[in-house]
Formats: sequence, structure tokens, C-alpha cells
Amino acid sequence: MPEPIIFYDIPGKDVSLKSWSPNTWKTRYCLNFKGLPYKTVWVEYPDIEAVMRKVGVLPVETKEDGSPLYTLPAIYDPNTQTALAESAAIARYLDKTYPDTPRLIPEETDALHAAFNKAFLTTFSPHLRKLTIPVVANHLPPRSEVYFRKTREAAWGVAHLDEIAPPGPKRDEAWADVKKGLGTIVEWLEADGTDKLFFTGKDKIVYADITVAAYLVWTRITLDQSYWTDLISWHGGRWGRFMAAFEKYEAVDEGEEVKV
Amino acid sequence: MPEPIIFYDIPGKDVSLKSWSPNTWKTRYCLNFKGLPYKTVWVEYPDIEAVMRKVGVLPVETKEDGSPLYTLPAIYDPNTQTALAESAAIARYLDKTYPDTPRLIPEETDALHAAFNKAFLTTFSPHLRKLTIPVVANHLPPRSEVYFRKTREAAWGVAHLDEIAPPGPKRDEAWADVKKGLGTIVEWLEADGTDKLFFTGKDKIVYADITVAAYLVWTRITLDQSYWTDLISWHGGRWGRFMAAFEKYEAVDEGEEVKV
Repeated sequence: MPEPIIFYDIPGKDVSLKSWSPNTWKTRYCLNFKGLPYKTVWVEYPDIEAVMRKVGVLPVETKEDGSPLYTLPAIYDPNTQTALAESAAIARYLDKTYPDTPRLIPEETDALHAAFNKAFLTTFSPHLRKLTIPVVANHLPPRSEVYFRKTREAAWGVAHLDEIAPPGPKRDEAWADVKKGLGTIVEWLEADGTDKLFFTGKDKIVYADITVAAYLVWTRITLDQSYWTDLISWHGGRWGRFMAAFEKYEAVDEGEEVKV
Repeated sequence: MPEPIIFYDIPGKDVSLKSWSPNTWKTRYCLNFKGLPYKTVWVEYPDIEAVMRKVGVLPVETKEDGSPLYTLPAIYDPNTQTALAESAAIARYLDKTYPDTPRLIPEETDALHAAFNKAFLTTFSPHLRKLTIPVVANHLPPRSEVYFRKTREAAWGVAHLDEIAPPGPKRDEAWADVKKGLGTIVEWLEADGTDKLFFTGKDKIVYADITVAAYLVWTRITLDQSYWTDLISWHGGRWGRFMAAFEKYEAVDEGEEVKV
């Protein structure tokens, strides 16, 4: 049995939203799916850069001002002394390092998975964000909330996050776009005329499925119950069946908080 | 041996550009790759709708005014009395109907192939079009040229197609974007750290590869030689090696023209 992998996640302040980020959920699902031992280390937003620098994780992107952008998820694997960020890179690392665990990205599908990632970015997640981002802000611990509001208000060009999709036509349109985007994913799944639940078949979960599930779990835990009730009625009820397959991979350990 | 499949393609007026459309090239590659007997029927642009209606092919999309849009490629398979359009749908039909021929879309990759298709649409092809569309217009037979210029000038919002990317900064930028877009595809191919030439491996061609090859053959036969020389120098010379694998699937039969 390998030593527990350190998994860096961003904490919410409430138990129901302790682990809430769709991007870190991808990695949590991956770790749980593979059955690898791990321990969550909770890092508040304003501390991510300092913690990542200390752990030796490289930045994932560059900010508009040219400075490095450090994001979570990230892991530190004491078994190989490897530190890395970005959920798809982590999935590939885990497949390579632990070949006896269930594979996330079947070898033959690697490049297609990378293309999927790009296509997925423009489906339902940009629309979903309009509804979830304002809720997330209300459920972060104080220091993270300040950081989150400031950066997201700037990114969305609003004075207050509630302006992104206030109740009414704007919110209804965003939710309709979520449905349309999920419909695109259904088109992909049914392109060959088969009615499969997952990307590579009826019973097998791969990283593309985990990507979709991570955004659906975000929907379920963030928005009012009425949205989830609505969503699981779409597309012949497939999303309820889909998410039922992920229940056993949703364990969230207590972990520990890191301070800088 | 099955009866020859009827393959509907759009003719150019010159031998070197007789078969020139990247979308119909996908189907031509598929048929040649599978070694299925087929005969090309050349249909000029203004005749596509009438011919497709006669053959019983359904329209692929809807125009802005709500009327149906008939596009090529399309096939009529006398062995199954099946008529259908759209290159990906044709690829899936051929895989299903002729299971003893080399498979284009491995079953496990079907949904990921559909996602790839969406991701590919935003990579290098929109930029490439800026350079190729004006050249194509000069190489169509008269009736097709009139139709093509009228519809494409309207779509691009220009008085003359040469305005899309005239020699100078606009054209240089479009070509740089083609390089950047192809670079994205290289990132997909190398996502797992392996240096593979094709999407699912080192030696195996699938439909995603054919999609890329169809746009590269369009580049090669449409643009001045200097562009192709430049392109095959990019990314470690991979595209010259890539296209060499497609040479044996580039046969264009004489076929026959259809008049309405």
C-alpha cells in the first residue's frame, strides 16, 4: 500500500460545501475511483500561491499581467516525491504511476480525451458558472470570500456577483443554456445511435465522465434543490442514473488545514 | 464484393483541384481507407439540393431563414438502399455496415470522437478558410463559382472574397493562427507525453486523423507551394510524415457529372 497522497483542495465554510470546487472534485473522484490512499489538505484562496511554491508545484497558467497563476487541484505524492497541479495532468500521472488501479484514460483515448477537454469547456460549464459562482462566494470562509469576490467580480465585469444572473430572465436563460449544453453531451454519447451512460460504454467510467460528474456534483451541492430536481428530469432522467454511479466515489475525508 | 457506393462530391474545374472540399475529402479518405468500391458523382453547388432531394438524402442543417441546408459529402449505398449526408454520420454508417473493413471510429472512442469533432471546429480550420476560400472560388466551374462567391461573400460580410485575408498583415495573422491551431492538435497528441503521429497511436489511422488530413490536403492543393513548404517545417516536421501516411488513400476516380 503506498503512502497517502497529499491532495490540496479549497475549503468551503459549511460541511455540505466543504469540498465544492468542480476542478478539485475531478481529482477527488480520480483518487476515490482508483482507491488510492490520500489526505486532503485544505488551502484557502489567498494562500494557494505560497503553499504551492513551498510544495514545489509549478503554476498552471499565466495571469493577464504576466505573473504566474497557481491553481488547485494539486497533489504531492510522497511515494515518488512528485508535486503537480491541473486535474488532467494529475489523472495521467496517477494512471502512469499506479498502473494496477482502474485506468482513468485508456491509452488509445488519450489524445481524444485532450480534445474532449477543450470541447467540454464550451458546453454547459460556462453557463452553470453564472448560477453557481454567486452561491459559492456566500459559502467560503472570510479570507477566501474576499479574494474570490474581488477576482470574480473583475473577471465577470460586475460590481457584485449577484448581478451575473439575478432571478428572472437572465437566470432562466443561463439555466436553459445549461440544459442545452448538457444536451450537446448527450448528442456525443448517442452519436453512434447507442444509448450509453458513459463515454466509453455502458458500465465503464473514464476521465471524461468524471469531468462531467464534477460539474454535476457542483450543481447538486450549490444550487437550490429545485434546480437539481429539474436537471435530473432532463434527457430521459439520464443524469440521475449517471450520478448514482458516482456516489461511491464521493467520500470527503476530514483532512487538515494548512496555514502560511 | 459489394456494389460500388455512389459518392457525391463537388467538382473543381481543374484536374489538380477536381476533388477539393475538405468535408468531402473526409469521406473520400474513409472510402479509400476501407477499400470499398465507389464511384464519384460530381454535383455542382447550385444542383446539390435538387440532387439530394432526388436521391432521398435528408438536409444536414437549417439555414438562417429556416429553410433546409443540403450539403456534401453524401452517399447512396445500393447494397442497403441507404442515402445519407455528413461525413461523421457516413463514417459511422460505413463502420456499421462493413464491419470487416478497417474501423474508422473504434467503438470505445465514439463519444470522444464526437467531442473531438466539436473541438476541431475551433482549431485551425476557421483560420485556414480565410486563405483557402478565395482560392477555391477561382477554381470552380462557372455556375458553382457564382453560387459560391454569393453565399461566401454574404457569410464573411465582404464585397469580394479577396478582402478576407489580402496579402500583408491580415494574411500573415491568419497563417500564424493556422500554425497555432495545429499546435493545439499537437498538444492533444502529446498530452500523455508520448510522441505519437496519430490520435490513437503510432501506426493506426482513425476518423480524427482523417479529419485533420482532409484539411491538410485542402491546404496542400489550394495554397501556393510556399505555404505547404512552411507548414511541413512546423512541429518537428510531423505534418509531412503525417500526410505521407495518407498518400495511398488519395485516389480520385474520374466519376461522372450529374445534371439536373
